[in-house]
Amino acid sequence: MEIPEVVIDRLPLYARALAGLEARGREVVSSQELAQHVFGDIKGAAQIRKDLSYFGRFGKQGRGYNVRRLLEELRQILGLDRHWRMALVGVGRLGRAILGYEGFAPQGFRIAEAFDADPAVVGTRVDGLVIKHTDELEKVLAASPVDVGIVAVPAESAQKVIDALVRCGVSAILDYAPSAGHVPRGVQMKRIDPVLSLQSMTYYLKARPLSPK
Amino acid sequence: MEIPEVVIDRLPLYARALAGLEARGREVVSSQELAQHVFGDIKGAAQIRKDLSYFGRFGKQGRGYNVRRLLEELRQILGLDRHWRMALVGVGRLGRAILGYEGFAPQGFRIAEAFDADPAVVGTRVDGLVIKHTDELEKVLAASPVDVGIVAVPAESAQKVIDALVRCGVSAILDYAPSAGHVPRGVQMKRIDPVLSLQSMTYYLKARPLSPK
Repeated sequence: MEIPEVVIDRLPLYARALAGLEARGREVVSSQELAQHVFGDIKGAAQIRKDLSYFGRFGKQGRGYNVRRLLEELRQILGLDRHWRMALVGVGRLGRAILGYEGFAPQGFRIAEAFDADPAVVGTRVDGLVIKHTDELEKVLAASPVDVGIVAVPAESAQKVIDALVRCGVSAILDYAPSAGHVPRGVQMKRIDPVLSLQSMTYYLKARPLSPK
Repeated sequence: MEIPEVVIDRLPLYARALAGLEARGREVVSSQELAQHVFGDIKGAAQIRKDLSYFGRFGKQGRGYNVRRLLEELRQILGLDRHWRMALVGVGRLGRAILGYEGFAPQGFRIAEAFDADPAVVGTRVDGLVIKHTDELEKVLAASPVDVGIVAVPAESAQKVIDALVRCGVSAILDYAPSAGHVPRGVQMKRIDPVLSLQSMTYYLKARPLSPK
């Protein structure tokens, strides 16, 4: 059975909330309480029950979920119990912030290689990694494969970098470039694009009175 | 009629593709070609036609869309023809990358105020902005309101910052903190969380053979 992508996208939120509950010593949680943690509202409880039902039967009617067991199941479903090697392409200002981001390692995501096209950057050490030239990307990743590619290059270079990563067998790409890069079927790509997020929020703002400028 | 949020989320992608076509001097585009630009695949054409149909009749059967007219309509629908003032809270490594991000200004989004809680950072100038103390946030934004708040503080401070922004009348929040912050009804919030994006992609990767570590 094909599970909808929107369901998969919500599972990490559930896992994060459960990890928080487990850290506070909670053993059992109701779908209402989990919804409160995830969505800030108990109305998401039916959604959570439906999403989880794709993966079998968790929890007993009226008894709630066993926090540790559900968390373990979600970790396994999502592959969170593994370590994932990533390659970063683009070590400008944004790339440096990504290299320094402390949220990846505790979740099993490690940037193992970093590339840039600027000769002034190549060969320098940033956060313990020696930056390699983008021209060497395919050679380096052939010898030392990664699972995930992170694209932090300007829009005009993004598709070329994405294509190179795909040729290296990378099958998941996190795309920070403000462009509409494409990947072939079978390769996952998620865009991190704050402007798109802002532009979809302003739809809701525009009916409001303007704030004084 | 309430328009589904997933539809609103796709409109900025259409606007971006149309702006690219307009810049290249194109006057008319079919839904198939627009889908090719947006999704890398003509199969999204029906989706585009359906999404646009929420807003009235654009384009004529078999004649395609007038690029400039559709782009103008989308800009108006999304509020892209306006200027939006933003306040950034958190001027650490991530906050600095956000302050330096060159993608905001050309799209009408300007960071007008920036706050941090670190006395060593307060009073310094970053990208032309003097950083103010987070304790002054409500006072500053009362005198100089903003439309959007950007949260780039550690997870444990995020909800407090979100609550303060909401008290100041901010009704759209871009949340970079790796936490499950909540907003009251009527306030928009989008999360920029690379770990959640990675975790939903590893679901698809985990069935693959592991790359040698």
